[in-house]
Amino acid sequence: MSTPDTPDNTQSTWLDQVKWNDDGLVPAIAQDADSGRILMMAWMNRESLALSARENRAVYWSRSRGKLWRKGESSGHVQELKSIELDCDADAIVLKVKQLGGIACHTGRESCFYRTLKEGQWQTMEPVLKDPNEIY
Amino acid sequence: MSTPDTPDNTQSTWLDQVKWNDDGLVPAIAQDADSGRILMMAWMNRESLALSARENRAVYWSRSRGKLWRKGESSGHVQELKSIELDCDADAIVLKVKQLGGIACHTGRESCFYRTLKEGQWQTMEPVLKDPNEIY
Repeated sequence: MSTPDTPDNTQSTWLDQVKWNDDGLVPAIAQDADSGRILMMAWMNRESLALSARENRAVYWSRSRGKLWRKGESSGHVQELKSIELDCDADAIVLKVKQLGGIACHTGRESCFYRTLKEGQWQTMEPVLKDPNEIY
Repeated sequence: MSTPDTPDNTQSTWLDQVKWNDDGLVPAIAQDADSGRILMMAWMNRESLALSARENRAVYWSRSRGKLWRKGESSGHVQELKSIELDCDADAIVLKVKQLGGIACHTGRESCFYRTLKEGQWQTMEPVLKDPNEIY
């Protein structure tokens, strides 16, 4: 048996190919596998990426809390993984996901990218689907 | 007249709302506005974001070269902007673009995210559309 701290050889190979930044992190973009909507961007460390692949759900590294963040652990808004993609420079990741509950954002919106630049201002273009007080 | 170095008040407001990291950068995700395909992720500083909005094309900050990078300046593969979106934490940006030439990646592929994790390996899933030697 392998654990995230002692990955087996196969894991070690693909994890080693990721170019982690100076903080040991890589940006991970979550995209709805069906609609193509970009839901959020968060960060992963080696352990969280290994766990994501193993558990088939998005596990991020919370920089603010300094710990693993199993997306949906408190909200129920789990992101089931459909695929994990790596870019040409190996320093960014795309996760194609099924977003449970249809809400990725802590504000209760489908996507964290709900503001669009219009006439020199960031304008909110997307409704709150669920009161955050009901989510957390 | 304003310049990127002396932005007018309007620009200053929306640019100030972006949470730049310690290096003065924010990650920017380029997405094909029609297909929804995620094309690439790069970085922007304040000047490059201001220029992107002004010139209506993606202008990144090249960390490796330490200078502005008008996407397509040598390849012709310009990214025309359809919209600029900001996330809830104001620390990530999505650009919806029209990708001229249909190629975003320096390897000659449509997208930089051409590798998918399968059976413990990053497998190339997308063809080269044009020889990079013909692009640059």
